[in-house]
Amino acid sequence: MRIATFHGHGGPETLVLGEAPEPRAGRDEVLIRVRAAGVNRADVLQREGRYPPPPGTPQWPGLEVAGEIAAIGDAVTRWNVGDAVCALLPGGGYAEVVTVDAGLVLPVPPGLTMTEAGGLMEAACTVQSNLQAADARAGERLLVHGGSGGVGHLAIQIGAALGLEVWATAGGSDRADRCATLGAHPIDYRSDDFQAVMSEAGGAHVILDVVGGAYLSRNVDALATGGRLVVIGMQRGARAELNLGTLLTKRARVIGTTLRSRPLHERRAIVAAVEEQVWPLVPESVRPIVHATVPLERASDAHRALEGGEVFGKVVLTTDD
Amino acid sequence: MRIATFHGHGGPETLVLGEAPEPRAGRDEVLIRVRAAGVNRADVLQREGRYPPPPGTPQWPGLEVAGEIAAIGDAVTRWNVGDAVCALLPGGGYAEVVTVDAGLVLPVPPGLTMTEAGGLMEAACTVQSNLQAADARAGERLLVHGGSGGVGHLAIQIGAALGLEVWATAGGSDRADRCATLGAHPIDYRSDDFQAVMSEAGGAHVILDVVGGAYLSRNVDALATGGRLVVIGMQRGARAELNLGTLLTKRARVIGTTLRSRPLHERRAIVAAVEEQVWPLVPESVRPIVHATVPLERASDAHRALEGGEVFGKVVLTTDD
Repeated sequence: MRIATFHGHGGPETLVLGEAPEPRAGRDEVLIRVRAAGVNRADVLQREGRYPPPPGTPQWPGLEVAGEIAAIGDAVTRWNVGDAVCALLPGGGYAEVVTVDAGLVLPVPPGLTMTEAGGLMEAACTVQSNLQAADARAGERLLVHGGSGGVGHLAIQIGAALGLEVWATAGGSDRADRCATLGAHPIDYRSDDFQAVMSEAGGAHVILDVVGGAYLSRNVDALATGGRLVVIGMQRGARAELNLGTLLTKRARVIGTTLRSRPLHERRAIVAAVEEQVWPLVPESVRPIVHATVPLERASDAHRALEGGEVFGKVVLTTDD
Repeated sequence: MRIATFHGHGGPETLVLGEAPEPRAGRDEVLIRVRAAGVNRADVLQREGRYPPPPGTPQWPGLEVAGEIAAIGDAVTRWNVGDAVCALLPGGGYAEVVTVDAGLVLPVPPGLTMTEAGGLMEAACTVQSNLQAADARAGERLLVHGGSGGVGHLAIQIGAALGLEVWATAGGSDRADRCATLGAHPIDYRSDDFQAVMSEAGGAHVILDVVGGAYLSRNVDALATGGRLVVIGMQRGARAELNLGTLLTKRARVIGTTLRSRPLHERRAIVAAVEEQVWPLVPESVRPIVHATVPLERASDAHRALEGGEVFGKVVLTTDD
């Protein structure tokens, strides 16, 4: 089968078409013929050698796909050959075929295209699991950093649909305006100070942050009493000064999470929670925005687009000939 | 009535005997004739001008007392005049009489002296609320910093009684040995590296820390996957570098809390939880250690003792003539 993979780490140009033997579904797995594979920032980090895949995972990137089930393992009862599904993967999604634990698979939600479904799973699981880690409750104020990103644009929609009051940062008025159409109070970080905006609003009860170090201090300052800062990315640095005095005074929390490295039973539980809480919101209230589709053989272009900073929502690889 | 108070901020010598009008119990309050008042590190900070009391609180220190109820407000049903009780206060405990919300009062546990009970409430509420904030579960590894302190020596006992596996740091082998007799694996921080000890043990699931900045980085390094660092004091600094990369990789949390500034309904809930979960452990499994009793008029000596670093457990002020 065809895959998009890299030999040695480096820029987007290292990502090229390759060949790998077709995998076989294990006892608890399904085999999916991939139609669409979402591109995530973690894939870029992996290509750069900064985010190695967990043991036992294919070496090529790809954390989510949509497609049809082509084979099922002996112990799998829920799925049938031909089912249209999307799946959360620990890696290996940039391929024509994947195998995945049957508990990490959900039906393609009615009303979504395969392409949209291919870019939904990773972000939906990230948002759901982190809102849960933060114990976010309806009526609370949620600040989403990177509101135009793959996770961010979905976090706005899911947060709003769950009854949170959502703010979102984005770079430039156009991108901020698009965040507003998704349900957020927009904050253009090029012209506005998110910390001042949130403090004015009473402070954020929950912050979902992909920026990391460069925002740590201002994020803590932007929290309300009892607020929870959930850091899920470190696009601008890992290390920064934390003022414990502010944290104590606010009785606040800094929570770090990742999705891919969690034990299987935890990822299964997250997927089950997504089906229960997010799937009913799709597509009326929650719909992934596909910024562009790119054929698998041009995966390097997809990475270039993501790194170029002009993507709003998701870039999705397609395997159709 | 007599109180121990200060005029201007400074060293222990600023703490002197004073007079204040006897308060009257409000509708939801009880009036307690104080027999014993616990001395806490927060009192020292308040004396130094670094921890101002919440609005509406007496200006003299004191976060906990034990004594007898001498009057009750119209809306109070649980308590009767003459009941032996201990109480959690937002301040003002260094006095012969206090008034306090009836929901912040518990009976003196059977088997405890008034003196012991006077030093129990603040630490018990601190430990209980923070183990709960950290969602500490039986079988997990708990690291207590300052195991010889007022909070720490009780945290060891409560943690062990709740089925946690407890480690505790203390300065010097004698103090570490005493922590061991209370149920902890002792770590003498003068000779042992707590981070190495905990990592060797598999990492701490929960850390209860009074040290703050100087320990932040090593605390995060000492956490297990999914670990929770609860910072309740900043004896050695408020600001320190946080490595978000470690936090994310471990899916760990840094939680800051205080007790005194919480809204009344939260403090009531904490006191109720202490009665339910900690009181049944007293005195068989949990018993405050009274290092010294000091008459109210020599409160300055009590502060000197606490600041001298030789106290193991609690110093308690007594009002008996």
